[in-house]
Amino acid sequence: MKAEIITIGDEILIGQIIDTNSSWIGRELGKIGIAVVHRTSVGDIAYDIIDALNKAKKRADVIVITGGLGPTKDDITKKTLCNFFDTKLIQNEKVLEWVTEIFARRNLPMIDTNKFQAMVPENCEVLFNKNGTAPGMWFDVDEKIYISMPGVPFEMQKIFSSEAIPKLKNKFKLPIIIHRTIQTTSIGESFLAKKIEDWENALPAHIKLAYLPAIGQVRLRLSGHGNNAQNLAEEINILIKKLYEIVGQYIFGEEEDTLQKTVGAILKKNKKTLATAESCTGGYIAHLITSVAGSSEYYKGSIVSYANEIKINELGVSEVILKTDGAVSENCVRQMADAIRKKFKTDYAIATSGIAGPDGGTNEKPVGTVWIAISSETKTTAHLYNMGDNRERTIHRTANEGLELLRRLMIKK
Amino acid sequence: MKAEIITIGDEILIGQIIDTNSSWIGRELGKIGIAVVHRTSVGDIAYDIIDALNKAKKRADVIVITGGLGPTKDDITKKTLCNFFDTKLIQNEKVLEWVTEIFARRNLPMIDTNKFQAMVPENCEVLFNKNGTAPGMWFDVDEKIYISMPGVPFEMQKIFSSEAIPKLKNKFKLPIIIHRTIQTTSIGESFLAKKIEDWENALPAHIKLAYLPAIGQVRLRLSGHGNNAQNLAEEINILIKKLYEIVGQYIFGEEEDTLQKTVGAILKKNKKTLATAESCTGGYIAHLITSVAGSSEYYKGSIVSYANEIKINELGVSEVILKTDGAVSENCVRQMADAIRKKFKTDYAIATSGIAGPDGGTNEKPVGTVWIAISSETKTTAHLYNMGDNRERTIHRTANEGLELLRRLMIKK
Repeated sequence: MKAEIITIGDEILIGQIIDTNSSWIGRELGKIGIAVVHRTSVGDIAYDIIDALNKAKKRADVIVITGGLGPTKDDITKKTLCNFFDTKLIQNEKVLEWVTEIFARRNLPMIDTNKFQAMVPENCEVLFNKNGTAPGMWFDVDEKIYISMPGVPFEMQKIFSSEAIPKLKNKFKLPIIIHRTIQTTSIGESFLAKKIEDWENALPAHIKLAYLPAIGQVRLRLSGHGNNAQNLAEEINILIKKLYEIVGQYIFGEEEDTLQKTVGAILKKNKKTLATAESCTGGYIAHLITSVAGSSEYYKGSIVSYANEIKINELGVSEVILKTDGAVSENCVRQMADAIRKKFKTDYAIATSGIAGPDGGTNEKPVGTVWIAISSETKTTAHLYNMGDNRERTIHRTANEGLELLRRLMIKK
Repeated sequence: MKAEIITIGDEILIGQIIDTNSSWIGRELGKIGIAVVHRTSVGDIAYDIIDALNKAKKRADVIVITGGLGPTKDDITKKTLCNFFDTKLIQNEKVLEWVTEIFARRNLPMIDTNKFQAMVPENCEVLFNKNGTAPGMWFDVDEKIYISMPGVPFEMQKIFSSEAIPKLKNKFKLPIIIHRTIQTTSIGESFLAKKIEDWENALPAHIKLAYLPAIGQVRLRLSGHGNNAQNLAEEINILIKKLYEIVGQYIFGEEEDTLQKTVGAILKKNKKTLATAESCTGGYIAHLITSVAGSSEYYKGSIVSYANEIKINELGVSEVILKTDGAVSENCVRQMADAIRKKFKTDYAIATSGIAGPDGGTNEKPVGTVWIAISSETKTTAHLYNMGDNRERTIHRTANEGLELLRRLMIKK
C-alpha cells in the first residue's frame, strides 16, 4: 500500500514555515504499514494542486493533502478539490452546528467567512475537526483514497489519528507491521550505538532498527514485518528485554513517554512532591512538568530566580557565595535546591544555574557551563555540565538532565 | 525565474527526519528573487529520482537537489545524475586533495569509500564543501541549472551560500521580489480578514497577501514582484503604513519578531523590570521571556504557584478568597500580580490562574477558564478568558495574552 503526501501553501515553498506535517504523517502511516513513496509541496495555485493530484493518483493508493482550508481568500483547496472531482460545495449541517457552537462558546459573533467552513465538496465524507473549525475530508474515488486536512498541526494530527487512521485500517487489508519505541536519555547516539552494537548486528532481517535523536534524548525504534502478529510481537518483546539488560539505565520510557511524564508517574506512585528553583532554565522545567495533565498532584511550584537578588531574598543564597563562587557554582545551586525544598515543603527539589549565553561566558566558566542540584530529605547532589554554545539547546538539555537526575535518584533501590 | 527543490532520502519520506533544508533553501532563493514553485521528496530509488528531475526541468529553471551524496550504499544520487545526464563519474583531483587533507587532519585512515567522494559526473562543476567530504555539484544543461548538494544542513548551507548563490546571481538577470511580514496577535484570522477586507481587495495584482496563523497569532505576509526595487519597497511601505492605520493595535512586530522579544525590547528601552506569578501557565511565560538572550536585564523572575499553599505562603493570597472565590478568580489573580510586583520589586507583573484541564472544570468555571492580571505602579487590571479545552493550547494562548496585555499597557500613551 503506497501513499503520497501533498502539502499546499506558498508559506511552505518560500520557507516561511517548516513542514513538520509531512514527517508526522509519514510516521503515522508507517505505523499501520502504509509506505509514503513521494511528497510534494505546491503553492496556493489551482493548476499546480490539480497537477499534483493527477500525478499522485498514478503513484499512490492513498493521497494525503494538508493546507489551504482556512477561511481566507488565499485558501483554495476546497474549491480546487471540487474542480478535480467535478463536484460542487454543499453545506454540511453537522459542521455548521459545530462551528456555531465553537463561536457561541467563545462568545464571538459568527461572520460569513466562518460559515463558509461548513461548505464541503458534495462527494466527501467529513472528518470531524475537534480542535478547529475547518473540517477534514475523505474522498473515495476510483479505488483511491484522498484525505484533505487543515495545515495547523494540532488540528491535523487530531483529525488524522482519530478519524482518518481508523477509516484507512477499515478500508484496506494492511500488512502486519509492529513498531516499538524505546526512549533513552543522557547518552549520545554514537555511544549508545557502540554499546548495543552486538545486539543490533544480531537483529533478524525482518526487524529493523532506527535511531531517532532529539536534544538530550535518543529514541530507538524497532520495526518488525511479519505474517503472524502474536509471534512478531513476542519476538520483538524478547529483543527489547535484551536491550534493557544492556542499556536499561538510560531507558526512561517507551512509545510516547516523555521524561516529565515518567518523573510525574514515579512521584505520583510514591506519593512524593516536587519543587524547582530555576535560574538558567528560566521556568522551562516547571513548564515541562506542568504540561503533564494532573501534575498539580505532585508538583507544588517553582521560584524562577533569574536575578541574583531573587536568589538571595527568596532562596536565601549567601551573598558571600555569590561574590566568591558566583551564581553559577556548586555552592549556589546546592543552596537553591535545599532552600526551595524546605520552603515549598516538598520531598524533592531540582535547581539549575548556568550560563545559557550568548553573553556572560568567561575563560573559567565558558558559555554552556551549567550546575544542577537535586535535593532530597537524605542528601543533596550537584552536577557540573558543559552544554555547548547554543542558548536554546542549553536550556532544553539542562531541563532534560535535571529531570533525569531526579528520575535516577527516585528509582535507586 | 522559477526553482524547484528535490530532496532525496527514505528518512524524509518515512518521517524519521524533518526536512528543514527545503525551507531554508526556499528562503535563500526568495531573497535573490527566485521563486520556489514546487517541492518534491523522493526515496533513494533511481527511477523516482530521474522521474522527479524530468518533471522538475519542465516546471523550473533552477533545480536544487539535496541528499543521497554520502559514502554508503543507499546513497545513489551521483550515479543517478550520471544516468540522467548520460555521462560518467570521473575523479576530481581538487576534491580528492581536500578529502585526503580532512582525513589526515582527523588522524583517520582513508578507505575506498572515502576516496569515492572525489568521483563526480564529468559534466559538473564542483561546488566546494568546506564543512564536509561530499562536494556540491553545478550542472548547466539545456538552459537549466541543476545544483546537487549533501543533505547535512550545515554542509549544504555553506555550499549554497558561498558557492551556489553567487553563481546564480551571475548566471541570471533576476527579478525583484520583496517579502514583508507583519505580526499580529490577540485577534482571530477571520476577524482580522474582515477588518482589512477593503485594504486587501485594493491590493495591486503584483502584491500578494498571505495569512499565516499560529496559536494566538496571525502573521500577514506581503510578497511584491517588480522591476524596480526602490519603487516596489516604497509601494509596500505605503501599504503597510495603511495596514497599521487599520489594525495597528494588534501589530506587535515585523519579520522574525516574537511577542517576548518585543515586550523585552520595550522593557529594556524604558529601563523597566518585570516579574511573573504563574499558576495555570506553570512557568511558560517565564520560559518565553528568558528564551530571549539578554532578558536578565529586565526580567527578575517568577513564582510558579501551582499549589494553593504556595499562593498563600509566597504571594499572600487570602485564604478567604481562595475559599469563597477560588484560585481561578479575579481577586486571586489580582493579589498574585500585586504581590509578585512588590515582592520582586519590579515595575510590572503578569499573573495567571486558570483551568488548563482536562480535569478540574465545573459548570460555572469550565475547562479553559483563565484569569490574567497585569500589575503596574499605577493600576492593576484583570481579564477573563475562555481558552477552550486543549491543555497545551490554553497554556500557550494564556502566555501569549499575558505578554500582549503587558505590551498594550506599556505602549499606551
